Amino acid sequence: MSFTPETRVSLDRFWSTIEASAKIGTGRPGGLSRLSLTDSDREMRDLFVNWCKDAGLAVEIDELGSIFARREGTDPELPPIYIGSHLDTQINGGRFDGIAGVLAGLELVRCLNDLGHVTRRPIVVVDWTNEEGARFSPPMVASGCFVGKYERDWVYALEADDGPRFGDELERIGYKGAMPCKAGDIDAYFELHIEQGPILDAEKRQVGVVTGGYPSHGVRVRFEGETAHTGPTPMDLRHNALIAGARFLTAVDDIGWDFAVGDGKATGSRLAAWPNKPGILSDTAQCIADVRHPDPITARVMAEKMRRAAHAAAAMAGCRAVFEDEWSWGGDIFDAELISGIRDEAVRQGWNWRDIQSQAGHDAYHMALHCPTAMIFTPCKGGITHNNNESCEPEDFEAGLNMLLHAVVKRADR
Amino acid sequence: MSFTPETRVSLDRFWSTIEASAKIGTGRPGGLSRLSLTDSDREMRDLFVNWCKDAGLAVEIDELGSIFARREGTDPELPPIYIGSHLDTQINGGRFDGIAGVLAGLELVRCLNDLGHVTRRPIVVVDWTNEEGARFSPPMVASGCFVGKYERDWVYALEADDGPRFGDELERIGYKGAMPCKAGDIDAYFELHIEQGPILDAEKRQVGVVTGGYPSHGVRVRFEGETAHTGPTPMDLRHNALIAGARFLTAVDDIGWDFAVGDGKATGSRLAAWPNKPGILSDTAQCIADVRHPDPITARVMAEKMRRAAHAAAAMAGCRAVFEDEWSWGGDIFDAELISGIRDEAVRQGWNWRDIQSQAGHDAYHMALHCPTAMIFTPCKGGITHNNNESCEPEDFEAGLNMLLHAVVKRADR
Repeated sequence: MSFTPETRVSLDRFWSTIEASAKIGTGRPGGLSRLSLTDSDREMRDLFVNWCKDAGLAVEIDELGSIFARREGTDPELPPIYIGSHLDTQINGGRFDGIAGVLAGLELVRCLNDLGHVTRRPIVVVDWTNEEGARFSPPMVASGCFVGKYERDWVYALEADDGPRFGDELERIGYKGAMPCKAGDIDAYFELHIEQGPILDAEKRQVGVVTGGYPSHGVRVRFEGETAHTGPTPMDLRHNALIAGARFLTAVDDIGWDFAVGDGKATGSRLAAWPNKPGILSDTAQCIADVRHPDPITARVMAEKMRRAAHAAAAMAGCRAVFEDEWSWGGDIFDAELISGIRDEAVRQGWNWRDIQSQAGHDAYHMALHCPTAMIFTPCKGGITHNNNESCEPEDFEAGLNMLLHAVVKRADR
Repeated sequence: MSFTPETRVSLDRFWSTIEASAKIGTGRPGGLSRLSLTDSDREMRDLFVNWCKDAGLAVEIDELGSIFARREGTDPELPPIYIGSHLDTQINGGRFDGIAGVLAGLELVRCLNDLGHVTRRPIVVVDWTNEEGARFSPPMVASGCFVGKYERDWVYALEADDGPRFGDELERIGYKGAMPCKAGDIDAYFELHIEQGPILDAEKRQVGVVTGGYPSHGVRVRFEGETAHTGPTPMDLRHNALIAGARFLTAVDDIGWDFAVGDGKATGSRLAAWPNKPGILSDTAQCIADVRHPDPITARVMAEKMRRAAHAAAAMAGCRAVFEDEWSWGGDIFDAELISGIRDEAVRQGWNWRDIQSQAGHDAYHMALHCPTAMIFTPCKGGITHNNNESCEPEDFEAGLNMLLHAVVKRADR
């Protein structure tokens, strides 16, 4: 047997790796709670590294713990093709988010091994550290550092919301590698991911070709006030940072509704106040919020409204707003040629497909800053994700996996 | 020397006990962080018990850890006079809140000891467990159980916001006593406390005679939603409990401002959401809020608006509001005869005094359900409290301590 246009991956083998992963770091029933740089993250990494070695791949770990598993090409000097995603999950995460993309790369390699097909260019399967940002904010730091957006030592210093620092936790789980976290010459980056939205499932599509990402803008704001008694302190003498935070997140939600008709979204995802106890007004509150909209100008307007809402909320609570961090991503960042190649495979293989925009953040957004990048979306039931009820069947991956296989091999062999 | 109308307490000796207390469980500069049933609470209790024993008092601990230090009267069969307050503090607490009231009782006893004056009725100095409710909500549980408002086992089962249960922590620090937590026949209860508001200081008054407490109504509400992705989840499919909580606390703050002209207050003091992390919508949020107003009908109206605001906030966020707990206190609960006796002492001793209402909760509110009760307020700088900058000078206590001394002795000797 040799690699032909009719070659297909083994859905069963792919699914068996999904099932093995689903046993590590289990959370609520059916879900995963495998936060970055925890013991269960290490356990999953160990398993993945073993799988890669068994598949004959050369495994390297970089300074931020990302795992690079390389299958040599017939021309090792040529820039490689990268296929990646992440094995960490949200605290109430599902079994597919990110994981499917890494294991898709592994299945692709195993499939080529079966057929003894060595591509011209090398293929590297990547697990990016801390895509979720669920323990260490912001998300996607390792791919960000890889392409020069973040400094390595800034990432090392990030503090987990349960206390320890990124660098210390990375060392503790034994995944602080020697390889510099710095992208070399890369021919193309592919990422397969579940959609994390309801569109493909609602339209009964088998696969989505990702054309870009919703322009998204996020902020981390700290409100500063003063502790005082909840009883006798007159309203006009209060500096309750918790109220500043509550007013801010309320305003953010209002922005989301104001722009919902154009498919805008605005989210308050975190409010951590101190002391946050009965009887006492809080003197600090940290909030994380973001806005997303398919139109870049509208997204910028929403972002500016969000920033001003923070100052207004602070003023209404007699507090001060300090912007600790801001980030943006999305837009028409993916490579037209790669997108065409994936579309061609969808047509050739006869899947029920559509173009789609990504609304979540992905490591692909960072990689797109560095090299031609594209994504493939697979359906998930009802769009439910970041939830233990995230649900996919093996067939949901059939189109995406096989399009990935052929798009990658075509690119790697050219 | 004998006890005469001119007898005065030793301000220096009282102040030395304040200063000793200020070294145990220190928090931010100048403040205390001596939360109930922690190691520092135990250390302070041990010191207080030793002081009491040195003063010849018989010390008993009840089932909820409250400390009762009894000075026998010439007629031990008569119902005793109680003097009490609390030695626990907020997490960013001051050195005087509660503490001054317990140590006032100790100083009073020491003063009588110096003069060899034995009152007709016994005098009992009390330290109530967990007045603040800063670790175990609600506040004032031990005095509440003492007068039959709460069940002992319900209190034992309260969960600290850092994990362990009330009963286990009480046992751990060695203060689970054998004495039933049940009030016997009590002649009168007196509590001296710093005002915790700006009125006495602003008017340069030396002391306040407390006529009652602002009617206050509090709620603990849990909002229930569903985790989901912050990106692709459309606004109309969201059930973000964090937003329900934020909308609720915003509405509570609005109620406070709506009624501020009549001196109403409304406070959001806690919002604890889960997962409360970037990238994911929260599926639960616990909020604590209360309203206070000098007029009981207005306070009830504010409370009902607060309750409805919780349901409205839940509806706006696609969530459900579950009322976990509700409480009320305040009103014209103090004893007219005791209040008169204290006023008489203010006039006789020539202090610059005024009638004042309490706006904070106090164990006296519970005791007033059981026996004649009264409170004395002493000034604190700028009304700053529940803050490490809470500040008093020894002279701030001079009027209050001496009025307490004579009001108590007159009552105890009658």
